[in-house]
Amino acid sequence: MENATIDASMDALPLARRAAGDHLLMARAGNIRLVCFDVDGTLTDGRLTLDAEGRESKSFHVHDGQGIVQLRLHGIEVAFVTARHSAVAERRARELGVRCHVGVKDKLACVQALCAELGLALETVCFMGDDLPDLPAMRAVGLSVAPGDAHALTAATAELRTAAKAGHGAARELCDLLLSAQGRIDDPLPPAARGEVS
Amino acid sequence: MENATIDASMDALPLARRAAGDHLLMARAGNIRLVCFDVDGTLTDGRLTLDAEGRESKSFHVHDGQGIVQLRLHGIEVAFVTARHSAVAERRARELGVRCHVGVKDKLACVQALCAELGLALETVCFMGDDLPDLPAMRAVGLSVAPGDAHALTAATAELRTAAKAGHGAARELCDLLLSAQGRIDDPLPPAARGEVS
Amino acid sequence: MENATIDASMDALPLARRAAGDHLLMARAGNIRLVCFDVDGTLTDGRLTLDAEGRESKSFHVHDGQGIVQLRLHGIEVAFVTARHSAVAERRARELGVRCHVGVKDKLACVQALCAELGLALETVCFMGDDLPDLPAMRAVGLSVAPGDAHALTAATAELRTAAKAGHGAARELCDLLLSAQGRIDDPLPPAARGEVS
Amino acid sequence: MENATIDASMDALPLARRAAGDHLLMARAGNIRLVCFDVDGTLTDGRLTLDAEGRESKSFHVHDGQGIVQLRLHGIEVAFVTARHSAVAERRARELGVRCHVGVKDKLACVQALCAELGLALETVCFMGDDLPDLPAMRAVGLSVAPGDAHALTAATAELRTAAKAGHGAARELCDLLLSAQGRIDDPLPPAARGEVS
Repeated sequence: MENATIDASMDALPLARRAAGDHLLMARAGNIRLVCFDVDGTLTDGRLTLDAEGRESKSFHVHDGQGIVQLRLHGIEVAFVTARHSAVAERRARELGVRCHVGVKDKLACVQALCAELGLALETVCFMGDDLPDLPAMRAVGLSVAPGDAHALTAATAELRTAAKAGHGAARELCDLLLSAQGRIDDPLPPAARGEVS
Repeated sequence: MENATIDASMDALPLARRAAGDHLLMARAGNIRLVCFDVDGTLTDGRLTLDAEGRESKSFHVHDGQGIVQLRLHGIEVAFVTARHSAVAERRARELGVRCHVGVKDKLACVQALCAELGLALETVCFMGDDLPDLPAMRAVGLSVAPGDAHALTAATAELRTAAKAGHGAARELCDLLLSAQGRIDDPLPPAARGEVS
Repeated sequence: MENATIDASMDALPLARRAAGDHLLMARAGNIRLVCFDVDGTLTDGRLTLDAEGRESKSFHVHDGQGIVQLRLHGIEVAFVTARHSAVAERRARELGVRCHVGVKDKLACVQALCAELGLALETVCFMGDDLPDLPAMRAVGLSVAPGDAHALTAATAELRTAAKAGHGAARELCDLLLSAQGRIDDPLPPAARGEVS
Repeated sequence: MENATIDASMDALPLARRAAGDHLLMARAGNIRLVCFDVDGTLTDGRLTLDAEGRESKSFHVHDGQGIVQLRLHGIEVAFVTARHSAVAERRARELGVRCHVGVKDKLACVQALCAELGLALETVCFMGDDLPDLPAMRAVGLSVAPGDAHALTAATAELRTAAKAGHGAARELCDLLLSAQGRIDDPLPPAARGEVS
């Protein structure tokens, strides 16, 4: 991929553009093999909708789903890691074909177990989260990212913060950054489109 | 319709106003006979709401529905074209009396088949979409439009981008543009209103 | 009520504040005996949420409900007038104790029938709406108001546009204006509060 | 906790930062033993979602829930106090392990009864609310707070207004302020995080 190509795609992708000048960061992003997403407030806008019979629903964004599908197409593992016991998160994970760990009390331990199972070093893991229970995992992995409206203490801890808010494309920004850093940003485009983007 | 009339309605309609100075674009908009809308992230705000039993819901905007009804009243065909298998999209389409193609893997092929069935040239089709799967169709048709919050690469490809976000009137802006370009913007108004708008 | 009192409450109420300088408008607002609200896009944010089984839901705002309750406490009649056949609108109307007309094809005729039934002149009616089907009624009544995000042609027709968007307090702004114009803005406050607001 | 530590956490917390310079306010915040939250428009964004069968749902924010859990961990009592008869509010309260009073006609009387039961003075109570029915309680307690999008008259009455809107972290801002004022802001952080925040 030529420089001009990278510049063109960078222009269109907020997080990738800001990160592009940071060669060390891009190098780390280029090594990520597993992306762990917190769910509420990271893949959703943080709203827990309840009805009178106790049914819970939550909203995922189609742009984030598209990004996660692309990560998987390029061989990057994806897992949802949430403290909440949530059948909704499990449904969305199944739909996207990714791992899902619910009711997780210790997210760092969960990530470590995933690394052992997959034979990956923590340095090759990216964790995206928005609040206090995510901090230990975020501090331990190779790359930590927070959505634009993460809680203040978590936002201050994350290495990167997206322009988009959680549930409105924040996760997609991270996916685009990783695909850019790994030279894959125009592979997801269908043949007809590939020529123009590059 | 006199120039003063057109200017007055232009003032009120963001997309139509911006497009009005571009005579070639307005000429192409004047020839559109079929409008194809992607669904999630184009007619909705991109949120997929799931509950614990896997029931999906999504939200359409009443302004967009009003615009689509007007397109049909003026003889412009409308179709929803979505990659997702979505009973919700089919319900909304039925309510508005428009075609609906769900589970579409190749949107351009779907548009081409629609053209063959309706005896229309691709130049008379407008496609509105927000993400990568929409690009091949958007590049092939006579007019391509993206909602204001489309994914960056798709927004960069579309000929026009609406001021409104998807699910908040973006589709209505396109409907108003097409009705303006075809000299129909005040026909939808009831008789009492027609006098003042013109 | 003294001037200082009025000024103090004006400061806090966006629509009332802007209208306060217009004595003719305030005089008309002071004569309103019936307020008719369109539902979708006026009392809601315009979103029609559908699930796979066709169940529709919509969201009303608690601030708007509080304003409508106060109108009724002060003897101002309230009616919902919607073109849609909506059991949801009927439920919300019943909860607030107001009239509800659904499936209305001709809103002006509906308002005229209400006036005949209640023995009111059209000049004493206020209509709040957001899109083309509301225009004939809005042009005929004593006061026409549009929410801040009404469709452009309707916003241009309304005499007043609220600062708040539909479904986020737009109707409450109108209620506060009418209560102000009728010298009732601090009556809704409980005794303990009344002293400080005045 | 050293001054530098407090400053660092202040920087990240909008309400706590603004309040930090007001020593009397911080002293009162330091004495709060019970926090009462109105529900609709305070813990939710004010939307009442209804379906055709009359089922109500509402949305709580995961950031607010995290803050409420921390208040309880530090021995501060929490109660929901709402005028609405709401099974949804009761479910959310049960999930967070806090008291819930629904169908409350006189919120001040409810707070007074709670104080009697818990052996607390009104000066040690904080009330967060957004509209007229909350005013008597807000005027009587030791600290009154309104979300950023409270109704104008209530916002003008509250001693503090959050930067965040209701249902989008407004309650969390208050929780962070109280934890800051009571020297607890970094206790909720897990051991690995505690070092860096301080």
